[in-house]
Amino acid sequence: MPSAVVLLSGGLDSTVAAAYAVEEGYEVSALTVQYGQRHERELQAAEDVASALGFEEHHVLDVGLSAWGGSALTDPDVEVPLDREEEEEEEEEEEEGDGSTIPVTYVPARNLVFLSLAVSFAETREANAVFIGANAVDYSGYPDCRPEFLDAFAKAATLGTKRGVEGDAIQVQAPLLRLSKGEIVEKGVALGAPLGLTWSCYEGGSRPCGRCDSCRLRKKGFEEAGVEDPVPYQV
Amino acid sequence: MPSAVVLLSGGLDSTVAAAYAVEEGYEVSALTVQYGQRHERELQAAEDVASALGFEEHHVLDVGLSAWGGSALTDPDVEVPLDREEEEEEEEEEEEGDGSTIPVTYVPARNLVFLSLAVSFAETREANAVFIGANAVDYSGYPDCRPEFLDAFAKAATLGTKRGVEGDAIQVQAPLLRLSKGEIVEKGVALGAPLGLTWSCYEGGSRPCGRCDSCRLRKKGFEEAGVEDPVPYQV
Repeated sequence: MPSAVVLLSGGLDSTVAAAYAVEEGYEVSALTVQYGQRHERELQAAEDVASALGFEEHHVLDVGLSAWGGSALTDPDVEVPLDREEEEEEEEEEEEGDGSTIPVTYVPARNLVFLSLAVSFAETREANAVFIGANAVDYSGYPDCRPEFLDAFAKAATLGTKRGVEGDAIQVQAPLLRLSKGEIVEKGVALGAPLGLTWSCYEGGSRPCGRCDSCRLRKKGFEEAGVEDPVPYQV
Repeated sequence: MPSAVVLLSGGLDSTVAAAYAVEEGYEVSALTVQYGQRHERELQAAEDVASALGFEEHHVLDVGLSAWGGSALTDPDVEVPLDREEEEEEEEEEEEGDGSTIPVTYVPARNLVFLSLAVSFAETREANAVFIGANAVDYSGYPDCRPEFLDAFAKAATLGTKRGVEGDAIQVQAPLLRLSKGEIVEKGVALGAPLGLTWSCYEGGSRPCGRCDSCRLRKKGFEEAGVEDPVPYQV
């Protein structure tokens, strides 16, 4: 039975990626990386999902990326945007049309760090693959969600690990890479992923705010898929 | 003035790499990654070196790689070898001559994780480079100390960061890559690096053991360089 380490944030995408790994026949160990401003609520979601999917091993690793800030998600001095369009307008003004549309919610080198930790974990478990819920469609502004980054990372991981040197490289799998949010929701439903246990909101609290960038994207996905979101919003 | 993030363990190599970055005119921020079994003594050495070299910023980041074990340096169940030759003999027996000489002190994907964290830090500081004391001569058994790994990592970091996408990639510098331990000591002396503050021993305590793999390699380096080690050993 092949085995895999899945990066599980507790959000929609990583949960669908995790359910996909199970469907593909992998024995899954989950890794949740805690960094900066993440909320207890999101961690609880990751634990609930790992439990619902029957994962035997689930590590929650604290990595203090907030030590150096640099993102709305790790730096208390940078405000999390409540409206994507507003944010983009502000960015355009600030950056004076240099063409960059990288959002303030970009966390410096996040997927590089997350994947590196997943590969370290995978190597000790003799796992065949690491799975990440990266998506190049809705997160096209994030450099570390692009296929060319994932390919380059996989090569570095092959060259930089004992497993890779010994000819048994750990595969990097991003099954949602080219799907729209609507298609991700459809896939999650088809796989029976526990979508009702997931948490996408950038804010904490008992219910997702429904207004932040992440909530709006999730709502759009469920609307596109024609599926009712099992998670109730504040608004 | 260019700036750089230097991975500083408190050992000989990273200290010489740090002194090299200073000599090259970089404004340096230091990053020490704490993982698994590392000793307070080593952390103290990193702090002393950072202070002696006048670094304004020095972060110590805890990353619990020991959560999944897999190395003599992170897993309490794996013994740290006191003698490299003995270790290699044992490995040959265990691995039945498959040609692998990767030591038990290899930490799965360590430099991949360390460099990723350094790049994350560097991106927030608009630093031009990250420095690592990796060495392909004495650590030829470690896949993540090879030039081909460092090149592949640099490419992944360029593709996976905002800085790289915007055409201002963070350079990965490993100035000791092709030096022998003796040459590293010579360079350290020439640079005026605070070698007397460094700690190389795998064990804790007030004085290095003088017998572990790392102490023996260090002793050999000072002997080759014809320099007296300012750090007194137990044996």
